[in-house]
Amino acid sequence: MKDTYKPLILISNDDGITAKGLRVLVETMQPLGELLVVAPNSPQSGMGHAITIHSPLKIYRSTVFDDLGVEAYESSGTPADCIKLAKYYVLKGRTPDLVVSGINHGSNTSISILYSGTMSAAIEAAIEGMPAIGFSLCDYEKNADFSHVVTYVSAIAQQVLQTGLPRGTALNVNFPRKSHEQIKGIKICRQANARWKEEFDERTDPYGRKYLWLAGSFENPDKGEDTDEWAIAHNYVSVVPCLFDLTAHHAIATLNYEWQILKETAPRTIQEHFDNF
Amino acid sequence: MKDTYKPLILISNDDGITAKGLRVLVETMQPLGELLVVAPNSPQSGMGHAITIHSPLKIYRSTVFDDLGVEAYESSGTPADCIKLAKYYVLKGRTPDLVVSGINHGSNTSISILYSGTMSAAIEAAIEGMPAIGFSLCDYEKNADFSHVVTYVSAIAQQVLQTGLPRGTALNVNFPRKSHEQIKGIKICRQANARWKEEFDERTDPYGRKYLWLAGSFENPDKGEDTDEWAIAHNYVSVVPCLFDLTAHHAIATLNYEWQILKETAPRTIQEHFDNF
Repeated sequence: MKDTYKPLILISNDDGITAKGLRVLVETMQPLGELLVVAPNSPQSGMGHAITIHSPLKIYRSTVFDDLGVEAYESSGTPADCIKLAKYYVLKGRTPDLVVSGINHGSNTSISILYSGTMSAAIEAAIEGMPAIGFSLCDYEKNADFSHVVTYVSAIAQQVLQTGLPRGTALNVNFPRKSHEQIKGIKICRQANARWKEEFDERTDPYGRKYLWLAGSFENPDKGEDTDEWAIAHNYVSVVPCLFDLTAHHAIATLNYEWQILKETAPRTIQEHFDNF
Repeated sequence: MKDTYKPLILISNDDGITAKGLRVLVETMQPLGELLVVAPNSPQSGMGHAITIHSPLKIYRSTVFDDLGVEAYESSGTPADCIKLAKYYVLKGRTPDLVVSGINHGSNTSISILYSGTMSAAIEAAIEGMPAIGFSLCDYEKNADFSHVVTYVSAIAQQVLQTGLPRGTALNVNFPRKSHEQIKGIKICRQANARWKEEFDERTDPYGRKYLWLAGSFENPDKGEDTDEWAIAHNYVSVVPCLFDLTAHHAIATLNYEWQILKETAPRTIQEHFDNF
């Protein structure tokens, strides 16, 4: 880029500060701006949008990225905590121009976005008014191959630095795992309407007590060709713009209609209404 | 109700199985159906949509509601875990007709829904296709007064049992704290566009190490009279229908337009494109 201003890029993740995907992301962002890493000191997968309010937080300067000359901090908190810590504690005033999270070791397509620590960091940043992207590779291996996605990570980050994002949104970007076939390109998608069908694997500990492991399988009845699941299955990069306003705006009129009597009944006569339903 | 079928109502919360708000909810639901309680064994506030995937889960039969003749289980998991455990482990097949969560000790209006364990239980239930409601009282006291809200809790649950909910939504219901004034009624609302401005309270432990407490203040620049914040401030019950599809559908067209070149550029020439931007 010809611009002489170096944008500030805040980087976090949910696999922890030593994860390979984080290092790949830091290396990929380095030519694009000044970097700050604030990441959890342990894996936080599945933490959703958890924040730490009932116990204290710790944050330390980390040497993990000293070899790249990048300032980094590790925190005992969740990914959402890391974004709050970066903005309100480490930076104290300067606002990052871009927040990137990941690259997650594992898919965060479809409903998995709700359980995703990677995306909670991005969504927390969006709440704070910062353009934010969560990157995930559909490969759960600790030593996953990220070589086929770095050009896309860089290009998407540059695109967002240049054109910003629609107000109140963050991006959920997923990449297909490395295969013999080259990635076909980028698709702007919607979240597939799929879910996890759970099973609990029941075991007994050495003291005779039962314990369970959550062990679900992903089920996708949504065959739409505009979904993130379709894009990944067809070797495209999926990009889903996501909201933090969860309001089902279209449902407000329906509820006002269906709840008319309930809304117009005085509290002390509500029970009579239901008794006569 | 004249119907002889007794609906199955699943009850959870995020303050833990011994919380007063949960007992109030169980007592209020008891006339409406057959009850099952699956709740965390410790407070889970702020857990967002976390699930337990890196450690085992425990679940035990609890005697907490034996005095009411209600079957209850306590789990080491999060509120979202509790819903999965209820559906796939305890019930093994029978699907609840209604899932209620709460009554939370504290507000879950506006952006707090994202951090809320109470609402994560309701949203998890909605993902599983069950009508679900999260109830919260805007009073953080352990011994909060719930007496002014039980009629509304019962009425809203009965309304949902009778008319269901718009597909793919869960309700976020908040109640004003007890005051000298009677609650004015129910408002169907949108999530206020407000957020937490954080501060970190820095302290030193007995071993000389620094630690932090997250201590934010809530800031609401959204003065719209259709928000949950407005309803609560004016002594109404706020009811927000919520989605688990986070897609910003309106932003898809914008991104397709703005990202046109990026989408049409072959991977190996993407960097040239940005070099010439």
